[in-house]
Amino acid sequence: MNALRRIVWQNDTPAGRVFDSAVMAIILAGLVLDSVATVDDIAARLGTVLGTASTAITGIFVTEYILRVATAPKRWKYITSFYGVVDLAAILPTLLGLDLRSIRAVRLFRLLRVLKVTRSRAVQRLGHALLSVKEEAAIFVLTTGLLLYFAATGIYFFEHEAQPDVFGSIPGSLWWAVATLTTVGYGDTYPITAGGRIFTTLVLLCGMAIVAAPAGLVAAALTKTKET
Amino acid sequence: MNALRRIVWQNDTPAGRVFDSAVMAIILAGLVLDSVATVDDIAARLGTVLGTASTAITGIFVTEYILRVATAPKRWKYITSFYGVVDLAAILPTLLGLDLRSIRAVRLFRLLRVLKVTRSRAVQRLGHALLSVKEEAAIFVLTTGLLLYFAATGIYFFEHEAQPDVFGSIPGSLWWAVATLTTVGYGDTYPITAGGRIFTTLVLLCGMAIVAAPAGLVAAALTKTKET
Amino acid sequence: MNALRRIVWQNDTPAGRVFDSAVMAIILAGLVLDSVATVDDIAARLGTVLGTASTAITGIFVTEYILRVATAPKRWKYITSFYGVVDLAAILPTLLGLDLRSIRAVRLFRLLRVLKVTRSRAVQRLGHALLSVKEEAAIFVLTTGLLLYFAATGIYFFEHEAQPDVFGSIPGSLWWAVATLTTVGYGDTYPITAGGRIFTTLVLLCGMAIVAAPAGLVAAALTKTKET
Amino acid sequence: MNALRRIVWQNDTPAGRVFDSAVMAIILAGLVLDSVATVDDIAARLGTVLGTASTAITGIFVTEYILRVATAPKRWKYITSFYGVVDLAAILPTLLGLDLRSIRAVRLFRLLRVLKVTRSRAVQRLGHALLSVKEEAAIFVLTTGLLLYFAATGIYFFEHEAQPDVFGSIPGSLWWAVATLTTVGYGDTYPITAGGRIFTTLVLLCGMAIVAAPAGLVAAALTKTKET
Repeated sequence: MNALRRIVWQNDTPAGRVFDSAVMAIILAGLVLDSVATVDDIAARLGTVLGTASTAITGIFVTEYILRVATAPKRWKYITSFYGVVDLAAILPTLLGLDLRSIRAVRLFRLLRVLKVTRSRAVQRLGHALLSVKEEAAIFVLTTGLLLYFAATGIYFFEHEAQPDVFGSIPGSLWWAVATLTTVGYGDTYPITAGGRIFTTLVLLCGMAIVAAPAGLVAAALTKTKET
Repeated sequence: MNALRRIVWQNDTPAGRVFDSAVMAIILAGLVLDSVATVDDIAARLGTVLGTASTAITGIFVTEYILRVATAPKRWKYITSFYGVVDLAAILPTLLGLDLRSIRAVRLFRLLRVLKVTRSRAVQRLGHALLSVKEEAAIFVLTTGLLLYFAATGIYFFEHEAQPDVFGSIPGSLWWAVATLTTVGYGDTYPITAGGRIFTTLVLLCGMAIVAAPAGLVAAALTKTKET
Repeated sequence: MNALRRIVWQNDTPAGRVFDSAVMAIILAGLVLDSVATVDDIAARLGTVLGTASTAITGIFVTEYILRVATAPKRWKYITSFYGVVDLAAILPTLLGLDLRSIRAVRLFRLLRVLKVTRSRAVQRLGHALLSVKEEAAIFVLTTGLLLYFAATGIYFFEHEAQPDVFGSIPGSLWWAVATLTTVGYGDTYPITAGGRIFTTLVLLCGMAIVAAPAGLVAAALTKTKET
Repeated sequence: MNALRRIVWQNDTPAGRVFDSAVMAIILAGLVLDSVATVDDIAARLGTVLGTASTAITGIFVTEYILRVATAPKRWKYITSFYGVVDLAAILPTLLGLDLRSIRAVRLFRLLRVLKVTRSRAVQRLGHALLSVKEEAAIFVLTTGLLLYFAATGIYFFEHEAQPDVFGSIPGSLWWAVATLTTVGYGDTYPITAGGRIFTTLVLLCGMAIVAAPAGLVAAALTKTKET
């Protein structure tokens, strides 16, 4: 029992590392499988294979959950912990025999499997990176919010009359503000009046780096975490 | 009176902090309300509710203004100060009974309420960040201006004959220069001749970071302000 | 004569600074004028005014050239110097009486006036910034060239059959490579095959910052020049 | 023989540097030639010239290969080395007399000539830069992968019903995720529902710098290599 516990809960033995890696690989395989299953062509041709694989993966997750419950040093602490709930939710539809009935609900529960990935060290590093920049991030999120609101209100005043369909309301203009200040520029909405274009120019020159800043902070923090 | 003054003008007491936060929350609520009111669906269904809420918020602002005038340590200094004028302008249409008559004028005065947000510490930090980079920003604004002018003139020479509608004049081509050098790239205007495309390539490789630089400076300064 | 020379050639006196600023202001006014004159509406209504203003500016430039030649410490050195040639070329069409005949040729000579702006300190600072990063810039220009060639060749192989018009040749595909790797993304050309899209993803993830790097180097160098 | 070996394999003599530069110039000329030959107009008019030039370049490569084999200090070591195989593969179709038969296969072998460029110092510097950031790059590639998967799954849930053609499957939605998070934004696919747009906003604000980070790391490492 102690040997099994060490394999399941720690990664200081070769067997423990193999167990962790195998679980992670199966989670990723399941995510790929679930996404590939949404392609109509593949679903039509390989439906049975995909179904079997999906059942197999769920089976492995059930086994993993039983193993974790059986070997947990403090059983109730695990069951009520974040990962305990995630692990259970990821297999709940199967346990309740829901697989055949409501497909959409099952899929939502399956998405919870993404959270299982966060047990990996690399992803937890991302979490630490996010926490270490939370103060600066708060300033930028506030500034970004005000900037997007200001841009949306401004463009609404300049473009509403010329393009009542595209810039029909301030919340609707926010979509333009997001697509523009992130420099994505899909091209579905853009100003056509001289005033709107001059306003866009000024807002872009002053603001595009501010909108990009929160993500930049996370990226910078993620680079630093290597040293720790 | 002294206790009230301390609440209204300072935030070194719990009550003072609650007052500041409440005013800020109501300003933000008002901004959200004004923007939501431009959505036709919502305006049609919730017109009465929105109108009442808007009146209530204006009422609170009137009360706030009276409170500030009444408790200001130096009354005339406040009334003639930047925020004194902003606070008054934000409620002026109501005081003059203009709410029902010219809607557009009222809205412009209401936009002044955005300036009330700048009383918040976080936004003043943005102001300090902007001031601390004003020298570098001046260089970049000048360089960006020359670059945009150069790009617009160049593309006009290359594309005017091939696309007389899109690149009809140099000021009109400036819109292309802005959308391209900020890398937004809406797709409403782009070069189609070989010369115009080669020119675009060279201008982009040399200039896109320069156009992004002023905003980058502000973002960098904003990151540093945390330490102060 | 010495006093005049000091005004024209140096800026250590108030009069010298006024002279420099006035010449710069007139150059910029001329550039704005030339660009505004390409707007059909304005040209039709204000044609005479613009023409007169243009003649006046050229007159000022002629006067400036005569002044510089007359007061230059070493006359021939100035006349044969870079700015001596630029100053002459900017007024050549007028001196030769070409204003009425070939409009296009005149315009090209007028564009030389942009070079007159480079006499300003701020623009020379840009020149120094460019020189200080020329080694790194060379590496990035080479890498960018290879990357664009590689991207264009790759997308040509993947997309040529599916979109023979859009990706008709490798040099033509370079336009796609530029618009994509600079993240401008006009939307006039984009891959539609699975292979082309996967290739685009990989090229973008590996290369978009490299294409942006030369301009980033210049922007960084420009920020540093303040300290000098 | 020793003098020839020094010219071919080293660049510590003027003749050696000329040899290296000449080979590099011919490789680049060959790449330009191959790309220009895909333009129909040019192929039709200059077909014979291009063909002759292509044969000449291949001839030079054959000569280079024979020279290298003849003068290599350790013959078999070169022949079985990476560049030995690349050098051979680049001339293989000619040696086998395939030039007239299967054009496509020949072209694929010709693309191997790009690898010959990597013998240049500047390109090897890029290789070193890539190696020096491989740890951070691994973190970002993993994070980017998860982020793109998460974005694609999310947008599929929000937009699948509204735009079943555009967001038909999760792998198909990945294309949208790539074009959006790199801020390229072609405009071929974009969300139209309120939910999809809010989701896009959040994903962009949190993730766009992370997707740009791997390429940024390479660019930063490339800047540093100058000092070595």
